Amino acid sequence: KTYFDCISSHRTVRLPGLIDTHVHVREPGQTHKEDFASCTAAALAGGITLIGCMPNTVPATIDNESLALTQKCARAGARCDYGIYLGASADNYPYLHRLSSQSFALKMYLNKTFTSLRLDSMESWIKHFENWSSDRVICVHAEERTTAAVLLLAELYKKRVHVCHVARKEEIIIIRAAKEKGLPVTCEVAPHHLFLTHEDAVRLGGGKGEVRPCLVTAEDQEALWENMDIIDSFATDHAPHTLEEKESSSPPPGLPGLETMLPLLLTAVSQGRLTIDDVILRLYTNPMKIFGLRPQLDTHIEVDLDEEWIIPNSLQYSKAKWTPFAGMKVKGCVKRVVLRGETVFVDGKVLAEPGYGQDVRLQPPLSPPLSSARGMA
Amino acid sequence: KTYFDCISSHRTVRLPGLIDTHVHVREPGQTHKEDFASCTAAALAGGITLIGCMPNTVPATIDNESLALTQKCARAGARCDYGIYLGASADNYPYLHRLSSQSFALKMYLNKTFTSLRLDSMESWIKHFENWSSDRVICVHAEERTTAAVLLLAELYKKRVHVCHVARKEEIIIIRAAKEKGLPVTCEVAPHHLFLTHEDAVRLGGGKGEVRPCLVTAEDQEALWENMDIIDSFATDHAPHTLEEKESSSPPPGLPGLETMLPLLLTAVSQGRLTIDDVILRLYTNPMKIFGLRPQLDTHIEVDLDEEWIIPNSLQYSKAKWTPFAGMKVKGCVKRVVLRGETVFVDGKVLAEPGYGQDVRLQPPLSPPLSSARGMA
Ligand SMILES: [Zn+2]
Ligand SMILES: [Zn+2]
Ligand SMILES: [Zn+2]
Ligand SMILES: [Zn+2]
Ligand SMILES: [Zn+2]
Ligand SMILES: [Zn+2]
Ligand SMILES: [Zn+2]
Ligand SMILES: [Zn+2]
Repeated sequence: KTYFDCISSHRTVRLPGLIDTHVHVREPGQTHKEDFASCTAAALAGGITLIGCMPNTVPATIDNESLALTQKCARAGARCDYGIYLGASADNYPYLHRLSSQSFALKMYLNKTFTSLRLDSMESWIKHFENWSSDRVICVHAEERTTAAVLLLAELYKKRVHVCHVARKEEIIIIRAAKEKGLPVTCEVAPHHLFLTHEDAVRLGGGKGEVRPCLVTAEDQEALWENMDIIDSFATDHAPHTLEEKESSSPPPGLPGLETMLPLLLTAVSQGRLTIDDVILRLYTNPMKIFGLRPQLDTHIEVDLDEEWIIPNSLQYSKAKWTPFAGMKVKGCVKRVVLRGETVFVDGKVLAEPGYGQDVRLQPPLSPPLSSARGMA
Repeated sequence: KTYFDCISSHRTVRLPGLIDTHVHVREPGQTHKEDFASCTAAALAGGITLIGCMPNTVPATIDNESLALTQKCARAGARCDYGIYLGASADNYPYLHRLSSQSFALKMYLNKTFTSLRLDSMESWIKHFENWSSDRVICVHAEERTTAAVLLLAELYKKRVHVCHVARKEEIIIIRAAKEKGLPVTCEVAPHHLFLTHEDAVRLGGGKGEVRPCLVTAEDQEALWENMDIIDSFATDHAPHTLEEKESSSPPPGLPGLETMLPLLLTAVSQGRLTIDDVILRLYTNPMKIFGLRPQLDTHIEVDLDEEWIIPNSLQYSKAKWTPFAGMKVKGCVKRVVLRGETVFVDGKVLAEPGYGQDVRLQPPLSPPLSSARGMA
């Protein structure tokens, strides 16, 4: 019956493999929360074929040794493609730029959140802006007036800045003003800030609504929707913790999101709040540009735009085993994912094995350097 | 004996009447702390012939009515010349610019301090920057990363910003970076941040060291001295409270400073840490430029560079009746002040009566508009 219904009236569309540039894999160091195998399975189930892996791991990815460790974990565990962020610490600015070609981008934590990497003093921000010689973008966790403060550095040092998880009206307004004056800034919004508010945090109770930036007011959320034209990308900020941790007396901030982002966005499409092109622009075209990514060859996803379902208490693949979106009725689901010629997800099943994923920064150059080799001979 | 000693070996110099652009007169509304008569007596005793009067009065000076009230108090009480700041509130941006010609400048409070005027959201900062059409400078209380945030607005809206009471290393460093890139920013430092540190706050105990920005570390203080070349002006941030208030369980932040600033700076001159030209530049030439002031005619002060004295527990004229600098040995004192041709202070006595002071923004234009009157005839 479902099959017949599906054939007769459900529209299926083919989209590019989606790119989620903001994912906390939790490996190395906190694999009880998530690891490369579980995280990338969740990504594929969500229609995502490439993730950016945040550096607030244990140890944090801040130097040659820790980068090598994270690369090793990823090589062994990842089922989809990935890039690995480098984290700015108080003292790694002198050498970090030497690792930049291997990095997905630089991440700077400028507010209090779930990390030991916070940079309190603007002195260290300045040192990183002066030293990060790469053309790789600088991604920032920068809330409220800190957004404006770091945009000043983007302007003074002429370095591209990407503002992560914009959540508040004043943040999106100052970003709009900066963009209008030509500053080199882009920004992303997370699904939980588009689809949940502080009211939901209260409803969810305890730690389940805890995330940084917080779930904010309806006015803030409305400002995000009203300024959609200047939001460059969507990103989950998938930040899994176990249900036990979230229900503890000191719950860590962070929400899972990989398996629910696309259904939530497709629901907005079905409601006319977004178009499918809005989604492709923000989960494929713009992430490619901002992060300087090559197309994944022979890669696409197939999406059923009309399948309606209710988000369960827990999704299939993330180790989080809970979701802040539980109970929400959504329309749209991922049917199949093809990554580099292989079907890696179909009919709810992840088929890709750990190790199938590739580091997008360690792939060989596109054209082999034949001419320069000849020139040297 | 003192007289003879003075004649024989003490150097007396003549300086312009000094300008202190950052003074909390406390009138209207809190005249038990200070009023125009006491505050301007203290100013003259400190060699200051022109003060900028901050708007965090009761009521705050934020509209036509409150400005008229403050003007009335000033006209009756002031012994030296003055200008009156307008304060930015959450909702007065639509009409404030119409009062700008009567104002000394616009003041925006962007951090928590002794005022009800704090602007929490960058939305309201933006509205003020967009609406303040005047060429009068925008003075900001903006600490730590808030300094950088408001400098972004200076850049985006091409409005001149003057950063009040810079106290920390990261603040002066970001201001240096902004100046080097040509941003329209100037800044001032208060004597208590040049001559006291957090250690002194501990020594003073309780509320006597409470001020915003806080008395900070020796490293922060050193950074101020090292960056003296980009500090445009000195200003007392004279913010008197009674000794009883400062010794209460919830002491308000703020220190008196009018009668001690010049002796402290002259002491630094005698120690070779500053030159007398450094002082004139930052207490006369630059304040004139930043605030667009005309010279006060027939005005000067006479200063004894060699008189040594110990700052007493309380100075003569401010109602504060205590000082955080008590016990400090200083070298240099004000002997005489001449304001618009009249000797208004001599030998420790203030001679000017309340009402002698003039509002520098309400003086008639320099050249009477004869030609335009003729043109109209
Ligand atoms: Zn279907
Ligand atoms: Zn973050
Ligand atoms: Zn994050
Ligand atoms: Zn297909
Ligand atoms: Zn003498
Ligand atoms: Zn202040
Ligand atoms: Zn002040
Ligand atoms: Zn004289």
